[in-house]
Amino acid sequence: MTQRNNKGLGGKSVIIRLEIVGDRMNFGLVANIVSSLGGDIIAIDTIHIGNEGSVRDMTVNVVDASDIAPILDAIGKIPGIRVVNTSDRTFLLHLGGKIEVTPKVTIQNRDDLSRVYTPDVARVCAAIREDADKAFSLTIKRNTVAVVSDGTAVLGLGDIGPRAAMPVMEGKAMLFKQFAGVDAFPVCLETTDADEIVRTIKAISPAFGGINLEDISSPRCFEIEERLREELDIPVFHDDQHGTAVVTYAGLINALKIAGKSLSDVTIVVCGIGAAGVAISKILLSAGVKELIGVDKEGILVQGETYSNSVKTAYAEYTNPNRRTGSLSDALVGTDVFIGVSAGGMLTRDMVAKMAPNPIVFAMANPSPEILPGEIDDIAAVAATGRSDYPNQINNVLCFPGMFRAALDCRAAEINEEMKLAAAEAIASVIPDDKLSKYDIIPSVFDQSVVERIRERVVRAAIASGVARRIPKEYR
Amino acid sequence: MTQRNNKGLGGKSVIIRLEIVGDRMNFGLVANIVSSLGGDIIAIDTIHIGNEGSVRDMTVNVVDASDIAPILDAIGKIPGIRVVNTSDRTFLLHLGGKIEVTPKVTIQNRDDLSRVYTPDVARVCAAIREDADKAFSLTIKRNTVAVVSDGTAVLGLGDIGPRAAMPVMEGKAMLFKQFAGVDAFPVCLETTDADEIVRTIKAISPAFGGINLEDISSPRCFEIEERLREELDIPVFHDDQHGTAVVTYAGLINALKIAGKSLSDVTIVVCGIGAAGVAISKILLSAGVKELIGVDKEGILVQGETYSNSVKTAYAEYTNPNRRTGSLSDALVGTDVFIGVSAGGMLTRDMVAKMAPNPIVFAMANPSPEILPGEIDDIAAVAATGRSDYPNQINNVLCFPGMFRAALDCRAAEINEEMKLAAAEAIASVIPDDKLSKYDIIPSVFDQSVVERIRERVVRAAIASGVARRIPKEYR
Repeated sequence: MTQRNNKGLGGKSVIIRLEIVGDRMNFGLVANIVSSLGGDIIAIDTIHIGNEGSVRDMTVNVVDASDIAPILDAIGKIPGIRVVNTSDRTFLLHLGGKIEVTPKVTIQNRDDLSRVYTPDVARVCAAIREDADKAFSLTIKRNTVAVVSDGTAVLGLGDIGPRAAMPVMEGKAMLFKQFAGVDAFPVCLETTDADEIVRTIKAISPAFGGINLEDISSPRCFEIEERLREELDIPVFHDDQHGTAVVTYAGLINALKIAGKSLSDVTIVVCGIGAAGVAISKILLSAGVKELIGVDKEGILVQGETYSNSVKTAYAEYTNPNRRTGSLSDALVGTDVFIGVSAGGMLTRDMVAKMAPNPIVFAMANPSPEILPGEIDDIAAVAATGRSDYPNQINNVLCFPGMFRAALDCRAAEINEEMKLAAAEAIASVIPDDKLSKYDIIPSVFDQSVVERIRERVVRAAIASGVARRIPKEYR
Repeated sequence: MTQRNNKGLGGKSVIIRLEIVGDRMNFGLVANIVSSLGGDIIAIDTIHIGNEGSVRDMTVNVVDASDIAPILDAIGKIPGIRVVNTSDRTFLLHLGGKIEVTPKVTIQNRDDLSRVYTPDVARVCAAIREDADKAFSLTIKRNTVAVVSDGTAVLGLGDIGPRAAMPVMEGKAMLFKQFAGVDAFPVCLETTDADEIVRTIKAISPAFGGINLEDISSPRCFEIEERLREELDIPVFHDDQHGTAVVTYAGLINALKIAGKSLSDVTIVVCGIGAAGVAISKILLSAGVKELIGVDKEGILVQGETYSNSVKTAYAEYTNPNRRTGSLSDALVGTDVFIGVSAGGMLTRDMVAKMAPNPIVFAMANPSPEILPGEIDDIAAVAATGRSDYPNQINNVLCFPGMFRAALDCRAAEINEEMKLAAAEAIASVIPDDKLSKYDIIPSVFDQSVVERIRERVVRAAIASGVARRIPKEYR
């Protein structure tokens, strides 16, 4: 096992602004105090020196956010020093937002102004009026995706509303652009009504070439995605479902190689039948899995039962072909693969010990996995989580930039099952067979070849399945 | 009078892609043909040279778009040359759209990823959940405006729909950023229903610090703006109304100095009581004009009459205090100022000759003014139009960037009458009294001091009128 990396888990920098009365700061004293309370002084920047004192910014690294308050208390008690304010680097990065809207060319003179705005722009408008498809070449529709959320299911925070969801959607827009050159704009909705959400997205759709749904709670997310897919002629992709499904399947392709098993032979238990669990199950069934068993709070989901949530009732119809019954523990006996998108601590070492030989465990609950990989390192063939501080992180960032890059490049009318399977295979293919190991089944999110691999295979899949409305030059 | 500037009126470049069979292009022949048909060859770029021929891009300047077809015809008849396609510079500028969404910082490693996205971003989300006002500092809401249109009243084109309206809204977003550092995103709506538009804008409002309504036809534009102003806590500004009104009033402030008249003494005729006409009338009344007369298709609008359009009926209630009646021609007898936002050719030299001495004529119909300035240059004190090829262009671009810069900087809850008046005074103040002339009443859109002047005065007006929710440092 790798060490827990404190930095990745929230070890952070704080910038403390100090007003110092008199000639100089007793640096030795401050350094001793900070150090004794677990902080490291990284930098001191002088902001202002006046006749009666100075203002300085001190950057301090701490292991945990809770270390900050005692440090501030102690510094505040030093005579002649006043803490003006503190900002941590994460908050500073967010000041004024993380994205901007920039012109591609500068307007330098009257002639330029006429071309990009009135009056000459009217010729471009007229061309689009004559042929609406020209919007795909002459406007940002060619390269722009809406990142849509109502803020009801954000990270581990739940229903925090549209304003509080913005930093996540802005972050996603950054990733779209940096990793795949896709322009993405956050659309955070002041409504949680499914009809209203569908209506709103349809109304604003002319500017966009694709819709990425994000952090919308279940079961509304299913209905919203389904209706938008039917009613819009651009791809609609609920990332919490399909992004997770694609990356999970990608990891599983390589994990099965490590375990020496094949997809059509294994029995898989999916624990947690929410948005992600349903989508993972569907992609695995499309990929050729025969025995797949869903487990939720009610235990194993069985055909013929009626569950409180209609999604689960429907789910039971197309899974669990041998009608196994019982608890999660029962489901796992002799099973090859556990896929968890449920809650922390759901899985025990004992349950894993009763699985078939060379078990594969994807414990992806966030922020606490169903079981910590360290507990089963000796008995599992492969263990993966959703976290960055363990090996084998199943991370949606591996999928969505390349997926939309491909969909936009071939002007796909939708993102279909073939394209999702192709994306998963592309991600899995980034790690050559001779580099595969139980700790290396999935590429890093910073691996620059991922997007290009996905793009290539997904465009081909879109063309082959008839949803591409443009054939990029290199595929002609 | 300045000369008509052909370049500004659509003189343009065309790039003609030629496939040439055999060794070489007979350049002399092609050049002769292009030149004889009124074109200038600016550049020839070799795209590809193969065994059997070559592909070349020839850039040709022409005076008018209608010159292109004969040139293409003639070139196409030269043996061994085939015209593959043609692109003009305006269309090339629009390929893929004119704006992009870019990250403010690059994500370089896992630590950065954690701060801008999951997991550390959750702390920022939580802070906004606790205090929704923090969205103004920690998200793009601080600096971002939606440019909203339903595409029903675009330039001189009319109802061309949301896709065809996009190039104008993208152009506007470019101007917002380049001139005032405001991030603006185009929202082109697939609906013309006022209820639906209001609902949609409210639903997407969390990301935005302001709403710029654009090119929405009358009378729906009035209702939509009014309802949004009531229901949203961010500024809503219909530029076709208020931008035009602000810049018109700015021009009038200086025109009156040239004519030696004062606002409270003059009689003003406003011709064309649509969105712009109503807004111009309102700002002039706020500014202190006493005798203002509206004229539309029905002639002078008079209190007590009922017009087909309720906006005109209401308008007649607060204008024309002396209840003058008759036609436009009647209205102008002895009048000091004509302001036209109606249609080309509505005004004659005879009508202007019957106005009071030193008449001021703002003939702002687009693309053809109510009267060409050249026809009245000798009898008018000042003539202004909406066009860039005459002196004194009344151009909205002078207002909206600075207006929203100010509104965002002081986190204004609305853009009120005081702020509009302040913006007009700021624009007028850019030309010092000793530089004023009948051909110089309004600054150029490229005058970099305009935005800063507007910002300063509008922020002060917002603070004084109680709508500023943040006092920028320099005003404290």
